[in-house]
Amino acid sequence: MQESALSSEFQTASVLSCKYDDPVQALRHDLHDELSIVESLIQENLDSEYVARIVQIGEYIFSAGGKRLRPILTIACACLFGPTGRHHLNFAAAIEFIHTTTLLHDDVVDSSSQRRGRPTANLLWDNKSSILVGDFFFARAFQLMVDTRSLAALAVIAESSVTISEAEVMQLAWQHDITISEDDYFRIINGKTACLFAAAAQVGALIAGASESESQAAFRFGRALGISFQIRDDVLDFDGCKLSLGKDLGDDFRDRKMTLPMIRAMQAASTEEQDFWKRTIAEGQQHEGDFEYVRFLLKSRGHLEQVQEEAVAWSEKAKRELENLPPHPLRDRLEWLADFSAIRQN
Amino acid sequence: MQESALSSEFQTASVLSCKYDDPVQALRHDLHDELSIVESLIQENLDSEYVARIVQIGEYIFSAGGKRLRPILTIACACLFGPTGRHHLNFAAAIEFIHTTTLLHDDVVDSSSQRRGRPTANLLWDNKSSILVGDFFFARAFQLMVDTRSLAALAVIAESSVTISEAEVMQLAWQHDITISEDDYFRIINGKTACLFAAAAQVGALIAGASESESQAAFRFGRALGISFQIRDDVLDFDGCKLSLGKDLGDDFRDRKMTLPMIRAMQAASTEEQDFWKRTIAEGQQHEGDFEYVRFLLKSRGHLEQVQEEAVAWSEKAKRELENLPPHPLRDRLEWLADFSAIRQN
Repeated sequence: MQESALSSEFQTASVLSCKYDDPVQALRHDLHDELSIVESLIQENLDSEYVARIVQIGEYIFSAGGKRLRPILTIACACLFGPTGRHHLNFAAAIEFIHTTTLLHDDVVDSSSQRRGRPTANLLWDNKSSILVGDFFFARAFQLMVDTRSLAALAVIAESSVTISEAEVMQLAWQHDITISEDDYFRIINGKTACLFAAAAQVGALIAGASESESQAAFRFGRALGISFQIRDDVLDFDGCKLSLGKDLGDDFRDRKMTLPMIRAMQAASTEEQDFWKRTIAEGQQHEGDFEYVRFLLKSRGHLEQVQEEAVAWSEKAKRELENLPPHPLRDRLEWLADFSAIRQN
Repeated sequence: MQESALSSEFQTASVLSCKYDDPVQALRHDLHDELSIVESLIQENLDSEYVARIVQIGEYIFSAGGKRLRPILTIACACLFGPTGRHHLNFAAAIEFIHTTTLLHDDVVDSSSQRRGRPTANLLWDNKSSILVGDFFFARAFQLMVDTRSLAALAVIAESSVTISEAEVMQLAWQHDITISEDDYFRIINGKTACLFAAAAQVGALIAGASESESQAAFRFGRALGISFQIRDDVLDFDGCKLSLGKDLGDDFRDRKMTLPMIRAMQAASTEEQDFWKRTIAEGQQHEGDFEYVRFLLKSRGHLEQVQEEAVAWSEKAKRELENLPPHPLRDRLEWLADFSAIRQN
């Protein structure tokens, strides 16, 4: 297995990186050069000769400073095997485009007005532009991927795209429905979050020449990491620090989005509590103090703690899957990322 | 070049087909068996194990009896070269899925309430479902295409997808703008209609082993056919028969959508007429009798006739491109289709 071209530089980076408290920052530093190429690919591909609005919306969104977690996963997993050429970077950019399509369409579907601390595109332009520019980004992703001629990786992303869009419809169909099961919750977060993390990791490994079993392990690593991330997100919405999160708590409750802590509370609800959930989630009648009562319920009955343990269990699973991948300083970073996913504050 | 498996059956079909007044009906008869397989592929791929809403919307839309023009182009162009296997049918189904995504998203963007004489999905369900189920269909198309492992054909569709979505945004940006140029009009209809016709024809030829120059000719044939179709559509909206069309005339004018007849009229407008266009299109102040006045203008000044001649010229161009493809009874049918595109009543 060829060593990553980054590897020798990386050794230095690794020594320096004790200054990072956060593995995402550290990985962004380690993979700085490759991430810069990904940014250039994104910039080139959000271009349109005749349609200024595409470029405006594209630049607005991509300048919002997302973490680029998915491209990081693709590049880091490729580096474990020593990537050749730039195909993994095409996939990293394509996956970020696909992620951006889902954000644009989600914000229309949820009538969101804020994302990453800024007004959403649907608010600044309109829903129509967000729908169609989202479609454009997906088409660009398709083009970037076909350019690599990597059919195995294309197949991974095609399947992932089906799973994502299926989960988006599923989430919509279950909206405000307090009878949702844990199985359905996990199907939704698998599609909404975990399967693109999984595909990002797997594609990186695949393109860099991983064996079938290694590429499957990369997939399972990404999937477990994504589930841990999403569950932690759900916990933070009840128990985070407003300052670290950069947004108010309670969004899920106010949007009547059934997350794991609420599902657990509902399963254990007394008749009186059931009425509370019916009123606030199914009927959408929320009054002052309701969110505080939910936090009280989730904390005093131990639901939040149990759900947090589940986030940690998924991050442990992610770490176990990493053991099936070649040892490498970047694998250590990914292990740190797995730990971080379940305890992060934002 | 291998003869189409359909060819011998087809000779009989051809003799029988004098009973058809319409080349679309005739082609649907000629290609009946292959189109049935495409319908099965569509049916299988609109399936979702967990999300009933996808299946409901899918069945509603695909049962609406679209003409399946794009699958017909793919299959017919493949048959000119003798297709092997079923890959061209995967592409035919995928292209119909992509077309359906654009219809679903278009209907949301245009707030349409009717399509093919029935309520739209966004009316029966909601905008959110139409956006997300549209995304699901695109992802399914992607999967169906990757399954064929035909990179050259995948590249054609990827590029076409970019052109389509770019044109959709362009159309939105030019909405209600009476300063739109003919160049921009042609860019929009190329993206909205012609480029998927072009890709459908080219992919059929490509997959069946056409040479580079033949596949390019198929592309140009489909493109010219699509432009002819779209211009004829624009003419019919002012000059069609309500009964044949199955809808009211004047939709484009009422939706303030700048089509070629209107662009021509605006170019030749007197100051008074310019004010009329400003009021009705730019400002959207339409009164009773306005549509009748537009019809009077377009007809009395010869704009409609000139635009109709343009539709015919594009259908002639489509026919000339066909001459670069192998002689075949189905090529004759496509020639008939080209003629028909510019004179059809619905």
